[in-house]
Amino acid sequence: MSEFRSIVAAFPCQVHWGDCDPAGIIFYPTYFRWMDSATWAFFEAAGYPAKRFRAEHLAMPLVAADCQFKFPAEQGDRCEVRSRIGRFGGASFVVLHEVLRADGKVLASGSETRVWGRFTAGPGTPMKGEAIPDSIKTHFRRKA
Amino acid sequence: MSEFRSIVAAFPCQVHWGDCDPAGIIFYPTYFRWMDSATWAFFEAAGYPAKRFRAEHLAMPLVAADCQFKFPAEQGDRCEVRSRIGRFGGASFVVLHEVLRADGKVLASGSETRVWGRFTAGPGTPMKGEAIPDSIKTHFRRKA
Amino acid sequence: MSEFRSIVAAFPCQVHWGDCDPAGIIFYPTYFRWMDSATWAFFEAAGYPAKRFRAEHLAMPLVAADCQFKFPAEQGDRCEVRSRIGRFGGASFVVLHEVLRADGKVLASGSETRVWGRFTAGPGTPMKGEAIPDSIKTHFRRKA
Amino acid sequence: MSEFRSIVAAFPCQVHWGDCDPAGIIFYPTYFRWMDSATWAFFEAAGYPAKRFRAEHLAMPLVAADCQFKFPAEQGDRCEVRSRIGRFGGASFVVLHEVLRADGKVLASGSETRVWGRFTAGPGTPMKGEAIPDSIKTHFRRKA
Repeated sequence: MSEFRSIVAAFPCQVHWGDCDPAGIIFYPTYFRWMDSATWAFFEAAGYPAKRFRAEHLAMPLVAADCQFKFPAEQGDRCEVRSRIGRFGGASFVVLHEVLRADGKVLASGSETRVWGRFTAGPGTPMKGEAIPDSIKTHFRRKA
Repeated sequence: MSEFRSIVAAFPCQVHWGDCDPAGIIFYPTYFRWMDSATWAFFEAAGYPAKRFRAEHLAMPLVAADCQFKFPAEQGDRCEVRSRIGRFGGASFVVLHEVLRADGKVLASGSETRVWGRFTAGPGTPMKGEAIPDSIKTHFRRKA
Repeated sequence: MSEFRSIVAAFPCQVHWGDCDPAGIIFYPTYFRWMDSATWAFFEAAGYPAKRFRAEHLAMPLVAADCQFKFPAEQGDRCEVRSRIGRFGGASFVVLHEVLRADGKVLASGSETRVWGRFTAGPGTPMKGEAIPDSIKTHFRRKA
Repeated sequence: MSEFRSIVAAFPCQVHWGDCDPAGIIFYPTYFRWMDSATWAFFEAAGYPAKRFRAEHLAMPLVAADCQFKFPAEQGDRCEVRSRIGRFGGASFVVLHEVLRADGKVLASGSETRVWGRFTAGPGTPMKGEAIPDSIKTHFRRKA
């Protein structure tokens, strides 16, 4: 059992016409767009909304991402991305995502490995990894 | 007849699987993505590549965009966006685009109205419109 | 004053990290993706959900689209697309869209001109325009 | 050493303004869009262009996808996706992709696991996995 709380944020999303391909099902990069948005929502719930990232020149660039596609989503399907921390390293961390349809069917599950970093001189300038703030680690830690 | 050269840049593109929708044809916002990319290529040809925009804190935000869809593009179609200046104002300008399939069939035509501007303090900070450089106007002007 | 009810559906959306460009504001084709999704939601509210479109081989391909960009949207902004019918022709119709930020600020306004059509033999086969069903026209007509 | 030829197709692509995020670098789902397009180009080179997939009701839905991000791509970067077969199973197969910048720098590497399938009654209907044609396996097999 992980030491991290199993669900801290649930990101709602829906499959739109333009998210689907000629096979009539979701175009798979859409799941990665959702996972990215879910991670931002996840950190907003931990006290780090987009505005704070911008103001403090923070960033969380990707090291790796993967997804398993279990059941095809169709246009109109209402879904939810449930996210939790898989691992906190020094500067890197793993976010685990599960995409569920409104009826509970698991459509996909994936993960993102990211680095906690800061732009040296604002957006568009090089980023440097730095230690993940304790307030974030504490937020996600399972309460005994 | 316009005072501007009719084609300064031709931006090549192709309809990919993920650019299409469940009707099996191109999802229309794809045309706007192409038009945006064509404008960047157009200005690169005029001496303003992306790196220069970044270095000089320049930007060309949109005021308006429109497109008429004439014939459906399908996956695999190789196309070209032909762009020309429609109008130069003080700080604003219009780029006219035509999307042609490899066999010459016109698929769509549209326009973008943009402002020439500069970030007050780097990307992510407010932009201010400013006069379009004469070197750009000269580049696009039809040679007598 | 239009003979059509001014708002039949309000489509909620949010500006995500990946919807923005290096200028730190919304990449403009995102507005067209939203307008498309808003139109689908609009017709769902009129008794035509995506599943019905699929089952009855219906489609509503675009003839034209345009948008005026009034104020830049930023990551995290919660928005709403308010849609109404601008005009019903025989087989064609115009949907007018307005994009508002949660605080009421108008970010963009645009329109889509579409044709009501049917695939001759299922998705991926040619479409033929046909008369817009009276039930739809009635649904959108302003009640006296 | 793999029994499959190491590069059968090289898919050219470029990082556009709208492919980048507010950090000024490529938005990561873009790599998956590229990998998908590269796979289609890869099969086109093996005698299966998009039109043949459509005509024969073929499909190659995803089972899984992953990507490691090694170096950030920026707007304007010209890249190439080099693809090769990692494994052929009965109905499933793995395509390995490497994304290189024009100067040879490796930006990302990833893989897609797909199933070879056929729509039971045209696009939009359920798919059934079936044996990968020998002609495809032969095409990709390394010549002794």
